[in-house]
Amino acid sequence: MIVEINPTGSMDLLSQLEVDKLKQSSTSDLYRLYRNCSLAVLNVGSHTDSSAEIYDQFQDFDIDVIRRERGVKIRLINPPSHAFVDGELIKGIQELLFAVLRDILYTGVRLRELSKIDLQDPGHVTHYVFDILRNAGALQTQKDPNMVVCWGGHSIREHEYQYTKDVGYQMGLRGLNICTGCGPGAMKGPMKGATIGHLKQRTVNSRYLGLTEPSIIAAEPPNPIVNELVILPDIEKRLEAFLRVAHGIVIFPGGAGTAEELLYLLGIMLHPDNKTQCLPIVLTGPRESANYFVEMDKFIRATLGDEAANMYTIIVDDPARVAQHMKGFMSEVRNNRKSSGDAYHFNWSLKIAPEFQKPFEPNHSNIATLDLHLEQDKASLAANLRRTFSAIVAGNVKEEGIQEIAKHGPFMIDGDKKLMEMIDKLLQAFVEQGRMKLPGTVYQPCYKIIQT
Amino acid sequence: MIVEINPTGSMDLLSQLEVDKLKQSSTSDLYRLYRNCSLAVLNVGSHTDSSAEIYDQFQDFDIDVIRRERGVKIRLINPPSHAFVDGELIKGIQELLFAVLRDILYTGVRLRELSKIDLQDPGHVTHYVFDILRNAGALQTQKDPNMVVCWGGHSIREHEYQYTKDVGYQMGLRGLNICTGCGPGAMKGPMKGATIGHLKQRTVNSRYLGLTEPSIIAAEPPNPIVNELVILPDIEKRLEAFLRVAHGIVIFPGGAGTAEELLYLLGIMLHPDNKTQCLPIVLTGPRESANYFVEMDKFIRATLGDEAANMYTIIVDDPARVAQHMKGFMSEVRNNRKSSGDAYHFNWSLKIAPEFQKPFEPNHSNIATLDLHLEQDKASLAANLRRTFSAIVAGNVKEEGIQEIAKHGPFMIDGDKKLMEMIDKLLQAFVEQGRMKLPGTVYQPCYKIIQT
Amino acid sequence: MIVEINPTGSMDLLSQLEVDKLKQSSTSDLYRLYRNCSLAVLNVGSHTDSSAEIYDQFQDFDIDVIRRERGVKIRLINPPSHAFVDGELIKGIQELLFAVLRDILYTGVRLRELSKIDLQDPGHVTHYVFDILRNAGALQTQKDPNMVVCWGGHSIREHEYQYTKDVGYQMGLRGLNICTGCGPGAMKGPMKGATIGHLKQRTVNSRYLGLTEPSIIAAEPPNPIVNELVILPDIEKRLEAFLRVAHGIVIFPGGAGTAEELLYLLGIMLHPDNKTQCLPIVLTGPRESANYFVEMDKFIRATLGDEAANMYTIIVDDPARVAQHMKGFMSEVRNNRKSSGDAYHFNWSLKIAPEFQKPFEPNHSNIATLDLHLEQDKASLAANLRRTFSAIVAGNVKEEGIQEIAKHGPFMIDGDKKLMEMIDKLLQAFVEQGRMKLPGTVYQPCYKIIQT
Amino acid sequence: MIVEINPTGSMDLLSQLEVDKLKQSSTSDLYRLYRNCSLAVLNVGSHTDSSAEIYDQFQDFDIDVIRRERGVKIRLINPPSHAFVDGELIKGIQELLFAVLRDILYTGVRLRELSKIDLQDPGHVTHYVFDILRNAGALQTQKDPNMVVCWGGHSIREHEYQYTKDVGYQMGLRGLNICTGCGPGAMKGPMKGATIGHLKQRTVNSRYLGLTEPSIIAAEPPNPIVNELVILPDIEKRLEAFLRVAHGIVIFPGGAGTAEELLYLLGIMLHPDNKTQCLPIVLTGPRESANYFVEMDKFIRATLGDEAANMYTIIVDDPARVAQHMKGFMSEVRNNRKSSGDAYHFNWSLKIAPEFQKPFEPNHSNIATLDLHLEQDKASLAANLRRTFSAIVAGNVKEEGIQEIAKHGPFMIDGDKKLMEMIDKLLQAFVEQGRMKLPGTVYQPCYKIIQT
Repeated sequence: MIVEINPTGSMDLLSQLEVDKLKQSSTSDLYRLYRNCSLAVLNVGSHTDSSAEIYDQFQDFDIDVIRRERGVKIRLINPPSHAFVDGELIKGIQELLFAVLRDILYTGVRLRELSKIDLQDPGHVTHYVFDILRNAGALQTQKDPNMVVCWGGHSIREHEYQYTKDVGYQMGLRGLNICTGCGPGAMKGPMKGATIGHLKQRTVNSRYLGLTEPSIIAAEPPNPIVNELVILPDIEKRLEAFLRVAHGIVIFPGGAGTAEELLYLLGIMLHPDNKTQCLPIVLTGPRESANYFVEMDKFIRATLGDEAANMYTIIVDDPARVAQHMKGFMSEVRNNRKSSGDAYHFNWSLKIAPEFQKPFEPNHSNIATLDLHLEQDKASLAANLRRTFSAIVAGNVKEEGIQEIAKHGPFMIDGDKKLMEMIDKLLQAFVEQGRMKLPGTVYQPCYKIIQT
Repeated sequence: MIVEINPTGSMDLLSQLEVDKLKQSSTSDLYRLYRNCSLAVLNVGSHTDSSAEIYDQFQDFDIDVIRRERGVKIRLINPPSHAFVDGELIKGIQELLFAVLRDILYTGVRLRELSKIDLQDPGHVTHYVFDILRNAGALQTQKDPNMVVCWGGHSIREHEYQYTKDVGYQMGLRGLNICTGCGPGAMKGPMKGATIGHLKQRTVNSRYLGLTEPSIIAAEPPNPIVNELVILPDIEKRLEAFLRVAHGIVIFPGGAGTAEELLYLLGIMLHPDNKTQCLPIVLTGPRESANYFVEMDKFIRATLGDEAANMYTIIVDDPARVAQHMKGFMSEVRNNRKSSGDAYHFNWSLKIAPEFQKPFEPNHSNIATLDLHLEQDKASLAANLRRTFSAIVAGNVKEEGIQEIAKHGPFMIDGDKKLMEMIDKLLQAFVEQGRMKLPGTVYQPCYKIIQT
Repeated sequence: MIVEINPTGSMDLLSQLEVDKLKQSSTSDLYRLYRNCSLAVLNVGSHTDSSAEIYDQFQDFDIDVIRRERGVKIRLINPPSHAFVDGELIKGIQELLFAVLRDILYTGVRLRELSKIDLQDPGHVTHYVFDILRNAGALQTQKDPNMVVCWGGHSIREHEYQYTKDVGYQMGLRGLNICTGCGPGAMKGPMKGATIGHLKQRTVNSRYLGLTEPSIIAAEPPNPIVNELVILPDIEKRLEAFLRVAHGIVIFPGGAGTAEELLYLLGIMLHPDNKTQCLPIVLTGPRESANYFVEMDKFIRATLGDEAANMYTIIVDDPARVAQHMKGFMSEVRNNRKSSGDAYHFNWSLKIAPEFQKPFEPNHSNIATLDLHLEQDKASLAANLRRTFSAIVAGNVKEEGIQEIAKHGPFMIDGDKKLMEMIDKLLQAFVEQGRMKLPGTVYQPCYKIIQT
Repeated sequence: MIVEINPTGSMDLLSQLEVDKLKQSSTSDLYRLYRNCSLAVLNVGSHTDSSAEIYDQFQDFDIDVIRRERGVKIRLINPPSHAFVDGELIKGIQELLFAVLRDILYTGVRLRELSKIDLQDPGHVTHYVFDILRNAGALQTQKDPNMVVCWGGHSIREHEYQYTKDVGYQMGLRGLNICTGCGPGAMKGPMKGATIGHLKQRTVNSRYLGLTEPSIIAAEPPNPIVNELVILPDIEKRLEAFLRVAHGIVIFPGGAGTAEELLYLLGIMLHPDNKTQCLPIVLTGPRESANYFVEMDKFIRATLGDEAANMYTIIVDDPARVAQHMKGFMSEVRNNRKSSGDAYHFNWSLKIAPEFQKPFEPNHSNIATLDLHLEQDKASLAANLRRTFSAIVAGNVKEEGIQEIAKHGPFMIDGDKKLMEMIDKLLQAFVEQGRMKLPGTVYQPCYKIIQT
């Protein structure tokens, strides 16, 4: 089965030079990445978070970039059939497909050619993140703050999923928009809930913004409800994008990824320059998950201290209150940005220290050299803990991480005995609660905590 | 608690004379009807289909029409709190509230003043139905046929409800709009499903059209997903509205109301003038409900004959095929209308004989005199059977019908022995399958089949 | 040449009953009026203000209302060819053509059927005017006050015409919309000027509202720039419509019609109930026309007194200042309406006394009995003077008036000697300045001032 | 007087890095160019085409690029007061001001950083032109061909100006959009006329596209009717832009600039690769200008031959026929693009040979070495003649050219005696008809034809 697809969005208007470059890129080293991300987007609705499984299942899938006199076209060979309705590609998936072309090939190539971009310079990195978001049409001026970033596990139980929908519904009723990391579970629930809230309030131009990265898109494919998809090149830029577009953050129960996000967030907010920032943070879940937050809170207090813990509010089993809390802060966020002359659509003033911005490659030697002692600056500790959990996410669901583990065995995590115990306990709980992998599989830990 | 609400839609632009008349109407005999319909709309999400229960629960609810220099306003006293979000009425409910004002008070009064409208004249009745729909903004020119009317029970089981959502989703993916009788069950499922389909296809201006009537609105309150609500004065005009706006009809499992709708539909389609009509009709349900349609089909064949039965297609457990069937017919509907010079938004050519158009009052004497013998013209038989089931619906959930029963005992249904047996069997099945009332109540039949 | 034209606007959605009535009306006594107004609209760009001449020139023109299954269509037989571009009717003219159908046939018939409308009751008359405007889509809620009514002669000299364009341009630059009586001269200039101002300010949804009446539409046909045309049934309802939609009024030099408008306006504003009204009024013209306003001002002061004269501001040769004056008042108009709870789109609070609202038929006996003495209530005097000038307009350009004069000779205007002298002097000036008829014709006075 | 202006269009969304670069550029060598172009845009409505005069008059004008946390702002010091209405910058001028910022500073800088753009490569030049147009939002996909490029003199007489308005009006009535080189005369008339035509046809999203270049913008400032302004870096890229966006070309009488445009156009169309191109070309003017085209046609036939002359149609004094001709070709243009797979919004297939694409610097030595002999390839002759007239335009109104002349005396134009005579005659006619400079000045030729 061969289908040719017309471009949408900014890919609808390319020069012949650009199309030529796209064609070249698509046959180069980037090709595999591009093909796999496209497959992930087409394969929405699948019930596995194993990239390998997906790639196995669609070995005969292929994708070509075609040059026409007037621009670009995409040819799909043997695409997953459930992306089509009566032979027509679902419009939302068509958009996501060209978001992949844009972010993987076009933006990538374009930025590489900007001779003056230096990714060692923090200002340049932020510009880079900004440019990707802008090019994707994800920065909208003239809009009051209303974007709530929702984080949480991709593998959560039914009642937790229902709870994320309820919170989304209540936020939708209050005109809030939703940004998540795409994918299933706590990344899909709030969006689905919000659609009904928006509908009842006759909200138009509702935004369901998905921020993902190439290495996770197959394991957590974006649902076509996502009407703005942006693929950031790595987890660090993706996290920066989350923080700069957020006007508020809701954290649902999750596993290692959620812990990574929370540590990243708190580590940054602890920076003295961010004292004047206004960013409401809520940790929430249904009654049955109350204990999850007790444990998480304990861990944060024991490692980063009360100052960090006081930055968030824990709300148990009360979707309306979560939404009220967020909505209530929006005018304060607005005033805060106004008084600092900052944009509503991108938080320029937020200070992100280099240790949070610099990419961390999750391999054995990098993990072995992580400084995991309690006696260090809280922000540094947060950064190192963030990297630890990041590595575990990689080992669990990212292709490179999985290969790393397959070759060299589990990541060895070493440090202060007390800290190791705490980490172990937390991870153990994640495993027991099934938060590491989608149900139906037995979890094989990709790490080993060294407790000596 | 007292709240004042600003007008929306066509109620936003009234003359002082009209507001004065509204005020007068609202304190007249129409007041109770107006109050109760408003309450029904505010009380969405309640879990009963007993009007009496609802009215009991909100005895201290009151509603006033207020005259301002510039137009009208509504004052709510003690409205159900779940219609509000942080003290603000949900926008969708606000719209429905002014649809009630428009259709119960304004349109009613306006039409009564048209000295030349004669409701005995079939052309005038059709004009009347057209005028109500037009005044509600529910007739849109310049749109290709895509409105699918969905009928089915308000009380259905979970898997049936899920199935109606799936069918709605598949129709939404194909750009079809949904019209139902509002209310829960098979009237809500297709709309909810379609919202997700529309979202994935980036469909804008999706229509969720609800057609209801004053006597049933409390038992089957419109969900705020309904973005166009029209209240027709009685069941006959409501049924005419359904048929004239439909480009296709899907019938899910249901009880007496659904049977009434099917008989009405087939009776009209049997008219010789309607031979050239193009209107796809599908009966569908999940695998578990297959038997329901076997029984219904048997009943139709035995009473109205194969000609009637051949007008519909039965599709079991295949939401995508239902949607394909509907979608597939749309261009034929378009050509059919075009060749007859008829409108897409209103089927003027459809012949509705007086026996189907004339209101039938469901009281004991009218029911006693129904001609229920098999030896009569098929269309007449359909009309009389339709009236029989209409009476049972009234006795089940309409306020007047319930009072009638309370005073005089069950409706006595009499006629051909064979026909009586068939009716009895069908109704018995409805009762056993819990289709007569929402679960949680024991059904007390409001009728008695006389089998002598 | 025969052309069939599709409906636009509200005529696009009629019931078959309504189309039947339209067809009947169009062949009844209304037919001639309907045909002539349609011809006027099609004949835009002609260079005469003589209805008779126009009707003579297009004697073989005919118009039919056609019934289709789906609604109405119009058939034109031998229409003026300059209404077409390459065989296609200009879209703006098509709209105006259906505005004629709507206001002459549809609205007329509709209102006649409203059994409870009593045109002797002031409230009903105002409702009637409101209903016609609303039905024409000319009332827009949710918009801040910005509608400036411009009055002035249809026959003015080139530099005066240029001046009206300049004023329109300056008002357009300030986001003001324009309402005039349609037709050439001071009724077209402000609109043309405003289009360029709006364009430069990127104003969208600019409004060019034309209010006319059947008896004058041929002499003063609406330019297709007019994007909202409303035909009121007579001059009194037209004047009421002007005043109720106006947020400010600019008066350019003109003849008898302009004098009529000014007297009507001042007479109403003198009513004690209108003391709190906020309505900026400016009299303006180019330097060469300064004397015109000196004379007009003298006449007003001598007849209605200084109180009346103080209601307007005279601005000579300063288009920007005229526009600043108007713009400057808009927020005051807004606050005034807000504080009285009145609408922005229709001035309900303005008191229009019966003597200004009641139609005055300009025939010899009515004119003979006009009370034209200075010793009477100022408002009554204004009303009677208004009627005097109204009669002269009728005698000049309205068909019935012209026939009246042809049959019975000039209107005899009698009253206080001093007043007669003043009127004579004013009219004499109008004649000398060529304000009574379009240039190229010698003016034959249709009146005689009795000075004994 | 100091005013700060907020960004519009794509300048509303810049990164801090970009704003920093803008600030740097604005204080660098680009500053004077940037300031002067901004002044030109603010100074619309002035009555001189002498850049020097304008710059003299506003010596104390200054402009700053300001960095705010959220983006960029512009500060104007002593701007021309007629750009403001009651202290507010006219919206259309605000847009043009940010078009200058975008095209002079932002696009310039951005492109310079693209390491892989090579302006010696024809494909890269075309990409460069495309990129500037795209970045300005001037390429709209999904629209059928309807863009007519109008060329003609900036200094034309009143009846010629009126004629360009009439042609614009007729094209507007037929839904055609207008692209010109901005500036007064034949560049403003068609746009003004089209606005009225569009208005009467209720056309929305009408386009008035202005293509200019830094060196001419002061002499020919864009009128704010222009709702899309693009500043191309030089005359060659501007001419390429004209040809690639055009679906048809109308040429009014003009001087050296118009001759340059016509020679460029014909030279390119003569290329064998362009045989299959479909591009209607009309030369037109009022009756009084008929002789102008006789002369021009003679010149073309004598130099480029009949093949070139047969590419255009001369229409005298018939605006409607000009518009019909253009409109009539649009579906052919559409089919032509469709069959070659080319875009409607940018004519990729048009072959532009290097001799037409390479910038020609109009200085004495370059002009001295021009090959002006009749015995050469027609396309080459066209290219050289084009350069000759380009030099004269520069000497007349472009700043650098004027300085060149001031320093070294008139350009010496030398070549075939017969050709020199023809050129001399043509230029002489331009001078006599006042087409070289705006009226009110005596023309001092900037060239000398060597006839030996």
